[in-house]
Amino acid sequence: MTAAYDPQNIFAKILRGEIPAHRVYEDAHTLAFMDVMPQGEGHTLVIPKAPARGLLDASPESLAAVAATVQRVARAVKTAFAADGLTVFQYNEPAGGQTVFHLHVHILPRFDGVALGRHTGGMADGAVLADHAARVRAALDAG
Amino acid sequence: MTAAYDPQNIFAKILRGEIPAHRVYEDAHTLAFMDVMPQGEGHTLVIPKAPARGLLDASPESLAAVAATVQRVARAVKTAFAADGLTVFQYNEPAGGQTVFHLHVHILPRFDGVALGRHTGGMADGAVLADHAARVRAALDAG
Repeated sequence: MTAAYDPQNIFAKILRGEIPAHRVYEDAHTLAFMDVMPQGEGHTLVIPKAPARGLLDASPESLAAVAATVQRVARAVKTAFAADGLTVFQYNEPAGGQTVFHLHVHILPRFDGVALGRHTGGMADGAVLADHAARVRAALDAG
Repeated sequence: MTAAYDPQNIFAKILRGEIPAHRVYEDAHTLAFMDVMPQGEGHTLVIPKAPARGLLDASPESLAAVAATVQRVARAVKTAFAADGLTVFQYNEPAGGQTVFHLHVHILPRFDGVALGRHTGGMADGAVLADHAARVRAALDAG
């Protein structure tokens, strides 16, 4: 059994505007913002607006919207950080690596010869994240 | 610049039936089969039938179909292996971890207290993969 959706998770709070986020993209069904505990420069998250704990309980419509936004934002992230590649992660349940229980997709720009960092558990500098978000938004606007 | 699509990649050959695969699911737009170099028991791949090197050059329609099949197969994989969670990976370009240049999504069943294995570069036993594929197909049929 999968646990129920908890509307007090931090991404639900971001969606309700109760806590801030460095937003890069929003449409009717999805939101994208910078990860505050990045595994590398440009680490961006895409979430659906509809409540879903993970991949398995999202509606087909919500999931299709997430996939489209992941592609759109991934393209912008690659451009914004002049990345050589992209790694996309999606974690489900604690055993699968999930720590926030609202469906989210990680987008990480990758660079030749650079190993992926790990979540340090530390928060990134807000000014740096604001700058990174601006770079992704500029790439989205230019795209 | 991203390199062009190479129709001689091994997933294109699987799609054309030129080399075998332990198939678990197929529809008009997607195919799912067991990874022959699994990072863990039940490691399954989902690919679009339409040619695409990675996430960025897939058509929106193809990407939506992949997302739907990932959800469907992920649910079956979780059931088939009685997994506690699921980890989903999607790699783009060598810097991003990609080794076969046809868009593919990795689905890995995960278990509490068990770290993710690494690609050993070795091929899994064919009889084991055949059994695993049969378990995923049975879960799909039951779903």
